[in-house]
Amino acid sequence: MEQAPLVTLLTDFGLADGYVGTMKGVILGIVPGARLVDISHEIAPQGVKQAAYVLYASYRFFPAHSVHLVVVDPGVGGARRPIALRTSSGAFVGPDNGVFSYVMHRDPVEAIVELVNPGYRLSPASQTFHGRDIFAPAAAHLAAGVPITDLGPPVSAPVSLPIPAIKARGDEIAGEVIHIDRFGNVTTSIGKLFWEGDEVLLRSAFGQVEESMRFAAARAVVAVAGREVAKVGHAYAEVGVGELLALVGSSGHLEIAVRDGNAAEALGVRLGDEVLVRLVGAW
Amino acid sequence: MEQAPLVTLLTDFGLADGYVGTMKGVILGIVPGARLVDISHEIAPQGVKQAAYVLYASYRFFPAHSVHLVVVDPGVGGARRPIALRTSSGAFVGPDNGVFSYVMHRDPVEAIVELVNPGYRLSPASQTFHGRDIFAPAAAHLAAGVPITDLGPPVSAPVSLPIPAIKARGDEIAGEVIHIDRFGNVTTSIGKLFWEGDEVLLRSAFGQVEESMRFAAARAVVAVAGREVAKVGHAYAEVGVGELLALVGSSGHLEIAVRDGNAAEALGVRLGDEVLVRLVGAW
Amino acid sequence: MEQAPLVTLLTDFGLADGYVGTMKGVILGIVPGARLVDISHEIAPQGVKQAAYVLYASYRFFPAHSVHLVVVDPGVGGARRPIALRTSSGAFVGPDNGVFSYVMHRDPVEAIVELVNPGYRLSPASQTFHGRDIFAPAAAHLAAGVPITDLGPPVSAPVSLPIPAIKARGDEIAGEVIHIDRFGNVTTSIGKLFWEGDEVLLRSAFGQVEESMRFAAARAVVAVAGREVAKVGHAYAEVGVGELLALVGSSGHLEIAVRDGNAAEALGVRLGDEVLVRLVGAW
Repeated sequence: MEQAPLVTLLTDFGLADGYVGTMKGVILGIVPGARLVDISHEIAPQGVKQAAYVLYASYRFFPAHSVHLVVVDPGVGGARRPIALRTSSGAFVGPDNGVFSYVMHRDPVEAIVELVNPGYRLSPASQTFHGRDIFAPAAAHLAAGVPITDLGPPVSAPVSLPIPAIKARGDEIAGEVIHIDRFGNVTTSIGKLFWEGDEVLLRSAFGQVEESMRFAAARAVVAVAGREVAKVGHAYAEVGVGELLALVGSSGHLEIAVRDGNAAEALGVRLGDEVLVRLVGAW
Repeated sequence: MEQAPLVTLLTDFGLADGYVGTMKGVILGIVPGARLVDISHEIAPQGVKQAAYVLYASYRFFPAHSVHLVVVDPGVGGARRPIALRTSSGAFVGPDNGVFSYVMHRDPVEAIVELVNPGYRLSPASQTFHGRDIFAPAAAHLAAGVPITDLGPPVSAPVSLPIPAIKARGDEIAGEVIHIDRFGNVTTSIGKLFWEGDEVLLRSAFGQVEESMRFAAARAVVAVAGREVAKVGHAYAEVGVGELLALVGSSGHLEIAVRDGNAAEALGVRLGDEVLVRLVGAW
Repeated sequence: MEQAPLVTLLTDFGLADGYVGTMKGVILGIVPGARLVDISHEIAPQGVKQAAYVLYASYRFFPAHSVHLVVVDPGVGGARRPIALRTSSGAFVGPDNGVFSYVMHRDPVEAIVELVNPGYRLSPASQTFHGRDIFAPAAAHLAAGVPITDLGPPVSAPVSLPIPAIKARGDEIAGEVIHIDRFGNVTTSIGKLFWEGDEVLLRSAFGQVEESMRFAAARAVVAVAGREVAKVGHAYAEVGVGELLALVGSSGHLEIAVRDGNAAEALGVRLGDEVLVRLVGAW
């Protein structure tokens, strides 16, 4: 298969101001044949945790030679390090503020460097737009085939966000709301539940680490914001229009939705809210 | 002329959540040389009729080898069929919910199939994100040259929305508001009016079907929301800033606009509202 | 370096209605190998001055063979001329309404023509969507290598917006707010201040014209909306979260920001508001 250079972009820049376009100009000036794909530019300003999740949910669907450029960077111009890292699934460029935490949790890191080599920056680099002056050039050079170790020295102890926890408490599993999408679908930190006989296995929604637990239970009841979700199913179409449903969504996370409606609004749910799965009854 | 694979994307996903980027990753993993063009991702959630119109207004301006991927899919995971179809103007991939109605009304359908061949899906396919797991792979394989009949068996009786009607009532022609754009321009289901001598010919705005009618009349008066539009013209610049104007817009539809202003807000017009053209006077 | 045709797009069309996608279809129909990069489509409707600034801040970061297509065009269908121009930094296509003023102020114009050659338009051209019918085809043909002089005859006296002024008044320099971005960062018409000994040199923020002035002063105090900004620095991270800061931003303009906050909201600042720099004290 052809390996056209491919750079994805994920920022909190919005699309109104031309910042994203400017970064693309810089990239195409360095690697004219690059394919550029927007992941999102509507991350809430300084929304590092949100960006980490959106990156995590999307990067696995890109070819492994892709370079993922992430600029959600409240500390621009300060002490935070500009970094690049590589895993078997792709290369990643952005600030060392935790935005790559979920990627690093899932994939072993093969190399991680600090972007200090002046030969791979615009000169002079501004102190307010590292996306244009440091990150875009680094992503472009990586996409063009420059070895990651040419960009700077190794980084130790990159910043890492806590992985949203799931906890077993008696016959309850507690997780949290980690994403609310345009449709109001509520994504949680709880992964798949597997029944084996009369036991339930629980898997963390984040990556390969399987924090499995076993429960003797017949079925699961999902509760959020003080309200039980009556139906646990597999597809939105299993309930009537306007009805609540819990299911394992397309990223392998437990999700709460309203068919053709907005679950987050209907339930008054916010990022970080607790989600409970109660395991009840017997076969 | 070079025939680089070209895939357009039209969804109600918004651009915040990374869903569109994820579909693009899937497409480029299958056909690395594809050109990807966004038509819109801001269709109102589940806005099948709106998507049908936006597709209709844009697809004709793309090369005929383009594949148009449309994912506005309130019935994902339910009984609605995933389909692909081909006309002389392009190929189309999406749910069988009527979103291709206006295309099929305009262009003879050469082939239409149900996307059931597992070789052209991601595996396992989720029940909540067919855009990623079924539609994007199908569009990519079509763009790469896979014959449409390889994707699945023929579909009969695809779902079709009613074509927005125009009706002659005495000396009035009644249509409806079918689109309101960012500028507040109000697009109607009424097409061109042609004077031939002292008769007016009316053409449906949708495609090649000409539901022509003849009226003895000197001029047309356009009315919407209980208000007459004083001026019927050809270009926004024919009226002063802030003034109302009716004209035949760039898609061949009768349109109501306010120069440098927002006609929909000024008139309180909504999708589906009736629009009247009264034919009055004599030469 | 490979010179793949590259067309950027800057409009007030928004992304909901499919207008931008339609223009891209027209371009790719003419020059299938073109790279297409969005600068912004969220310019306020009819926001010519805003578009002129966003273009100015971004075009310099694109390769010189790029074609910059700008469609912010309140006068579509009226008397304003459709034009194309070329400088050593790129080619530009759009309405003659001042949107290229800052480009022309910075770069010598090598050629400027009116887009009247029917061979490089869609036919028939609508009177309401010149972006699709006149500007997109012109940009595509330029990107494909058609000489600019083939598109039409020379234009004299193109429309030019006033360059936002900076004025010295005693020990004050007065400029204005020319852009407010998504983060609420306030960009001004005031460029860099250079200290040479105990004198301050002031450079206009717009292009190569250096309207330098000399002041005997030790330091600058920035004031906007009746409030002094305590800190003049180099990077957002120099102040605490929520604190105000003045700095020279990434486009070489004096900018007022709140770290991890929204300066425009905090200060109640709007486009066009006066910004003062007071030069005070002695070394």
